[in-house]
Amino acid sequence: MRIALDAMGTDDAPSSEVAGAVAAVEADPGLHVILVGDETALVRPLSRFRGQDRISVIHAPDRIASSDAPASVVRRRPRSSISVGLGLQATGEADAFVSAGSTGAVMAASVLLLRPLKGVDRPALATFFPTNSGLTLVADVGANIECKPHQLVQFASLGSIYMQDLQGIETPRVGLLNVGTEAEKGTEVLQVAYRLLAASDLNFVGNIEGRDILLHGCDVLVCDGFNGNILLKFYESVAAFMVRKLAPGLRVAGLRDKVDDLLRDLDYAEHGGAPLLGVNGVSVICHGRSSPRAISAGIGVAVRAVRSGLVGHMAQDLSRLETSGA
Amino acid sequence: MRIALDAMGTDDAPSSEVAGAVAAVEADPGLHVILVGDETALVRPLSRFRGQDRISVIHAPDRIASSDAPASVVRRRPRSSISVGLGLQATGEADAFVSAGSTGAVMAASVLLLRPLKGVDRPALATFFPTNSGLTLVADVGANIECKPHQLVQFASLGSIYMQDLQGIETPRVGLLNVGTEAEKGTEVLQVAYRLLAASDLNFVGNIEGRDILLHGCDVLVCDGFNGNILLKFYESVAAFMVRKLAPGLRVAGLRDKVDDLLRDLDYAEHGGAPLLGVNGVSVICHGRSSPRAISAGIGVAVRAVRSGLVGHMAQDLSRLETSGA
Repeated sequence: MRIALDAMGTDDAPSSEVAGAVAAVEADPGLHVILVGDETALVRPLSRFRGQDRISVIHAPDRIASSDAPASVVRRRPRSSISVGLGLQATGEADAFVSAGSTGAVMAASVLLLRPLKGVDRPALATFFPTNSGLTLVADVGANIECKPHQLVQFASLGSIYMQDLQGIETPRVGLLNVGTEAEKGTEVLQVAYRLLAASDLNFVGNIEGRDILLHGCDVLVCDGFNGNILLKFYESVAAFMVRKLAPGLRVAGLRDKVDDLLRDLDYAEHGGAPLLGVNGVSVICHGRSSPRAISAGIGVAVRAVRSGLVGHMAQDLSRLETSGA
Repeated sequence: MRIALDAMGTDDAPSSEVAGAVAAVEADPGLHVILVGDETALVRPLSRFRGQDRISVIHAPDRIASSDAPASVVRRRPRSSISVGLGLQATGEADAFVSAGSTGAVMAASVLLLRPLKGVDRPALATFFPTNSGLTLVADVGANIECKPHQLVQFASLGSIYMQDLQGIETPRVGLLNVGTEAEKGTEVLQVAYRLLAASDLNFVGNIEGRDILLHGCDVLVCDGFNGNILLKFYESVAAFMVRKLAPGLRVAGLRDKVDDLLRDLDYAEHGGAPLLGVNGVSVICHGRSSPRAISAGIGVAVRAVRSGLVGHMAQDLSRLETSGA
């Protein structure tokens, strides 16, 4: 099992990546991590972990500038860590790719270099929302600003297989983000998506309102990338906001540890980053502020995706959908 | 100053409404509240407040059934508290209307009976989000599921006047909810809205991302009713969710009071309900779970709207917009 890890992605690169890679290989004897990035920047942090022969380095000197459009990265920065790392998977030299770099760039490069699965219009970015009683996978959280009804059904299908393979949920419950529970609520796109989902063989439980997201009424929550992105970022910010409001009292009460646990629980990076669902390969996108623990968790997600045969299952399911005309 | 109050709106009607009306008139010697609802149901709760001659009752016996479409309430339930209460304003017998009844029904009836202001396509529902350092008015939060760019500009204009008149903010900062700060982010509707807002004489500060909503980077946050509704309901639920997660520790630490304060601070009902912006009158919609205090706050919002001449200012501003061709 070889995971290509973008060593240049986090705000703290490459030290978070190196430490995360070391933690991951130490925890998993069958794992080899290929650090992809600027060799010269990697020498020093790696020197602290001599004797670890299941970490190797592949040189990728190009830096992505903030002026580079995400879609142009493969063409304009062919020797960037993203282009080289995904290229390793495309050529079979790695089984998966993990990056905490620009979400837009990783998505665009993944689609170009891994290609979408047959039957997928546009891959979706999925991430976990911690809820009252478990994790809900929300898709899409930013890859597709506007979606057609059948694309939302594809997200539901891909998300369901993800929850089966990686979370062991046999028949994941699928919900549709909407402003009311009735079938005729929301935009026309959502009304059609509701009908398609209800007619599919997915375990569709209906519309989920904003106030019910955290009640864990579904395992896969489907929405367009605009709504998903706004919600995800808002959720990330609200925990810190509330703790600040309560901070003086919490400090006095010695509750800081409990609050830190809660914040960590609410930090999606700690759940292993966001897999890009629907490409012909494994591409996991971590938060730019990922800690070594979050990087290691992201590698863990990639490993479980490869071992479970996730991509093959998705391809099978999509061809079944195509055959049945859904 | 006569405020017509729907006495049948809250889950706890009419006792919350009666208690809220009493508190409001006791705090404001210039105020008269007209309770609109089922006379027989109002006798007992009112009997507890004998001698209060600035509260009167107008009988409205029709009950709105859950099967009534919001748009049909005026026609099918002409003697409901919503139809009668708004009718009082339309005929000049009341200066404003406050209700904790069905949001959809109050909106539809307000548009029918008060009519939109000239230059307003569709009124918007606005509500306050508590942030780090003050309140941000979010519009729309559910009246308009899909919006055209110029409608978003109307919301910005109406919201700005609301913040001037009711919150005393001289040049309210207007933000546009989006998935990134750059002008070309988001849907085509948002890209056009961005250009229109930037070219307007509003104090437009640019796009606001989900993670920045609580940083109080703007006084008026403009979005379509779908996104606003999802966000509002999610925000209402997340506070309770986090407190549950921290509950055992908080109890031990004697922090319950502080938490209750925070929850109240986050409860939009306590900020006086949501005004419907853009109708030719004052219609304030409170939460169905409103406490007497929340009802009283809603009445307070209506009073301030009438005293400040809000509707006249909005009409003026809209005619100016029309003249300038924006």
